[in-house]
Amino acid sequence: MAVSEKRSRPRIAVTMGDPCGVGPEVIVKAITSADVREECLPVVIGDRRTLLRAADLVGGRTIRVIRGLSDIEDSVPEAAIYLLPASDLSPEDIVYGKPSKNTCMAVVKYIETAARLAQWGEVQAICTCPLHKASLQKHGFPFPGHTEFLKDLTGATDVVMMLAGPRLRVALATIHNSLKDVPVLLTRDLLTRTIQITGEALLADFGLDPVRIAVAGLNPHAGEEGRFGREEIDLIQPVVESFRTRPFAVSGPFPPDTIFFRAYEGEFDAVVAMYHDQGLIPIKLVHFHDAVNVSLGLPIIRTSVDHGTAYDIAGTGRAHAGSLTAAVLLAASMVRNREAHQQSKG
Amino acid sequence: MAVSEKRSRPRIAVTMGDPCGVGPEVIVKAITSADVREECLPVVIGDRRTLLRAADLVGGRTIRVIRGLSDIEDSVPEAAIYLLPASDLSPEDIVYGKPSKNTCMAVVKYIETAARLAQWGEVQAICTCPLHKASLQKHGFPFPGHTEFLKDLTGATDVVMMLAGPRLRVALATIHNSLKDVPVLLTRDLLTRTIQITGEALLADFGLDPVRIAVAGLNPHAGEEGRFGREEIDLIQPVVESFRTRPFAVSGPFPPDTIFFRAYEGEFDAVVAMYHDQGLIPIKLVHFHDAVNVSLGLPIIRTSVDHGTAYDIAGTGRAHAGSLTAAVLLAASMVRNREAHQQSKG
Repeated sequence: MAVSEKRSRPRIAVTMGDPCGVGPEVIVKAITSADVREECLPVVIGDRRTLLRAADLVGGRTIRVIRGLSDIEDSVPEAAIYLLPASDLSPEDIVYGKPSKNTCMAVVKYIETAARLAQWGEVQAICTCPLHKASLQKHGFPFPGHTEFLKDLTGATDVVMMLAGPRLRVALATIHNSLKDVPVLLTRDLLTRTIQITGEALLADFGLDPVRIAVAGLNPHAGEEGRFGREEIDLIQPVVESFRTRPFAVSGPFPPDTIFFRAYEGEFDAVVAMYHDQGLIPIKLVHFHDAVNVSLGLPIIRTSVDHGTAYDIAGTGRAHAGSLTAAVLLAASMVRNREAHQQSKG
Repeated sequence: MAVSEKRSRPRIAVTMGDPCGVGPEVIVKAITSADVREECLPVVIGDRRTLLRAADLVGGRTIRVIRGLSDIEDSVPEAAIYLLPASDLSPEDIVYGKPSKNTCMAVVKYIETAARLAQWGEVQAICTCPLHKASLQKHGFPFPGHTEFLKDLTGATDVVMMLAGPRLRVALATIHNSLKDVPVLLTRDLLTRTIQITGEALLADFGLDPVRIAVAGLNPHAGEEGRFGREEIDLIQPVVESFRTRPFAVSGPFPPDTIFFRAYEGEFDAVVAMYHDQGLIPIKLVHFHDAVNVSLGLPIIRTSVDHGTAYDIAGTGRAHAGSLTAAVLLAASMVRNREAHQQSKG
């Protein structure tokens, strides 16, 4: 491959996530693969000592420490990993399964650094490895998770969480809420924005045209004409109808128990789910190892693994790298689609 | 096969369901198959004219009309279908997609007849084809569906709805309720009875020992230590712990988004789901064509297809018979397991 072609690969900042979890080892496994290298140029934002330990664990990868993106030579051997350090952790800090104040502060720094690089255009997307929410919050981190932090960092007004696998994509209207709060939280405005952001992303970042969005009902059998709840009649149906003139095809509300199968079989490009488990149960069942968490509505492109820090297996080398591989590849594909979409718009 | 061996096949009453839906045609497809004939002797409780029409549609099956179970000769050719008529519908009655008062009354009669035959021991199980709830209710049927009607007919105190596929089984704590009512309806007593009935059925009717039951949480991440709801802490956990001394292993509450994958992979024999779509979304995604609806807790063995009347394709011959085939085979297997379980107990 010629140097000029290599330079056209999108640069993707991959945050290392919790140094005490499986993030570092799945990074070493995922980003040196030929598939990933062919599609993009990943740069890890993380910690030298931690990444070296992960490279030893997985076996035989070279870490190239850089001070800035301008240090990148595209002629670097394919199996090497670019690292932009954003912490300098000690051996005492990086005990598997034992996050500390230092590691929690480091995790936050990786995300901030990656977001800035994306905003400055030094990378074209970011891809995040898992953090441990409870530990971060214990050390004063004021956000529920990555998504809300990135929303704050980039000044976005609305973010929609999508889980995307090879055959099924779901976007969530509500996320981390108790089930009993869901009917209260669902409003016309929220649903409208969720569908709008999902549709725009499918057009611009997933390269789909037309886009076919199915909206799930809230209740069994989508309420069965009001017998098991009226949210479909009073709320969801009017919102779906309001999209009749948009550039994407929105339909529903559909009975939740069959719509995911229909989307899986190819009838729709995404399902808008009303609540966390309505969307995550199906996606994790059919795409347990290769689903990607995508934040829609941010000014930057951001994908993420859809698993946690997995402290119970961190350091064993057993963690599956499928989700990170898929997340990096999806980010690269979104960069190319967004560029093509912007060019086509003129 | 010798006559004596044939006589040992369980007799299963298969109700024809709505004459205007796909029931009759899936019966003709399913119960003449070699697999089904090898495992049991099905007897259709239905309507002669309607079943003959279905046989013409599917092609080349003989209908043997009987007046009672004693008319059955085990030497009947394998492709013949035994029919015990429980209605005498006219051509005007059996228009596809157009149920009438006569067809609705007939559907009720099929179920009553099958339940009585099972209670008298003339058949060892019943298997039901779909009815159309809204039409039945329009004509005065006072039950939400099959399950509640059979509960009433047999005088059962508690019934649990299970959906069973080859790799995943789910039992529902609540069924046809709006989502907002679910947190209110879940009580310790209801959950305890649901788990108890599910466990007993897995032991006696599914031939499993030990039985491993996973109980799903209600909220995302099973509440994440109370952050997204307290039902796991206040309700589900205490009920799960109360089962520590029973003859089956009950664990949970588990995060709903991953427990179905774990059960699908073989870690559990069944998942107790808190609400309709929590259980039905995963089962319909992985077992769309071969899931069976099983009523646990009735004095009789009852399985059912897990699809509806499908008026839109009734009469085209396109309806998939996989669910009925699976339902009849599961009923036969439950009969044998229950017999073996009762023998082993005494």
